[in-house]
Amino acid sequence: MNYCSQCGASVALTIPAGDTRPRHVCASCGMIHYENPKLVVGTIPEWENSILLCRRAIEPRHGKWTLPAGFMETRETTAGAALRETQEEACARIEIGEMFTLIDVPVISQVHIFYRARLLDTDFHPGEESLETALFPETRIPWDDIAFHTVSLTLRRYFADRRDGNWRFHTMTVPMAYSSDDV
Amino acid sequence: MNYCSQCGASVALTIPAGDTRPRHVCASCGMIHYENPKLVVGTIPEWENSILLCRRAIEPRHGKWTLPAGFMETRETTAGAALRETQEEACARIEIGEMFTLIDVPVISQVHIFYRARLLDTDFHPGEESLETALFPETRIPWDDIAFHTVSLTLRRYFADRRDGNWRFHTMTVPMAYSSDDV
Repeated sequence: MNYCSQCGASVALTIPAGDTRPRHVCASCGMIHYENPKLVVGTIPEWENSILLCRRAIEPRHGKWTLPAGFMETRETTAGAALRETQEEACARIEIGEMFTLIDVPVISQVHIFYRARLLDTDFHPGEESLETALFPETRIPWDDIAFHTVSLTLRRYFADRRDGNWRFHTMTVPMAYSSDDV
Repeated sequence: MNYCSQCGASVALTIPAGDTRPRHVCASCGMIHYENPKLVVGTIPEWENSILLCRRAIEPRHGKWTLPAGFMETRETTAGAALRETQEEACARIEIGEMFTLIDVPVISQVHIFYRARLLDTDFHPGEESLETALFPETRIPWDDIAFHTVSLTLRRYFADRRDGNWRFHTMTVPMAYSSDDV
């Protein structure tokens, strides 16, 4: 950040009075520009014993497999964002279920949330950001080609809870030691 | 937003190619400035049968009572942010427990999260943003003077779960019909 989005003057990194952290503060109008973590929200779409995955048509991780997910928009709910992303990336009709994982990813200032969801039919197909969409039973999940660490964590918990017959809500943290290229 | 924070030129609200929503796009360098929902994170600090509340020394809701909570910072975890806010607003030493509520507040593009927490001692006192800090049993919660709707929702679920002896994680949504002054 170099310029004030309100008045166009230069900003400087300084600690405002009463604050403890450096912020981008406008030298002219005084506006303080805060940075905040972002929410990424998605679903685990279920059909019989299988899960719907999407192969990414965009960077990062072009060609890798992921659960449908993306950045939450303003004036959305987390469940609404999860539904929208599933429609956009897999053109899939779903019924949203319970929140299943919430994973802190502090190294990239993100929080990832995944909802369980039930596919209403198998008429899904790739949206603009996907190369392929397909159903995978646990034994055929492409573990070595999953795009994001939070997706692997979520899928492993999902299959573990299913084996136990005990669905729970899970909070997790991706350690800061992970490089931002590995999350 | 009037100016590009990267290059200082004017921005215009337009729908970028491949997108579906109007964004602030720089007419000069082409940067797309996305807006995202913000996370507000706090705790329900428990001591015996009582809960620690803070009376706000700042706007909005100056003079009203709240659970310690505030905006999550970059490179934090949700639990880390909840711990920090509790230290800042009530100078309280706590042990963080389970995530208890996650409440969507789409009318102001926020998501509020509250963790259960255990006070380690009663040596709390008001931080810079609080006028008073005090312990309240359920029968003395100042329901008519609670600062935020998400705090009331969280406290009511808290006492209901305690009565039932069944602690669960709750997701809720504050309806869009609420005005932004009422959440």
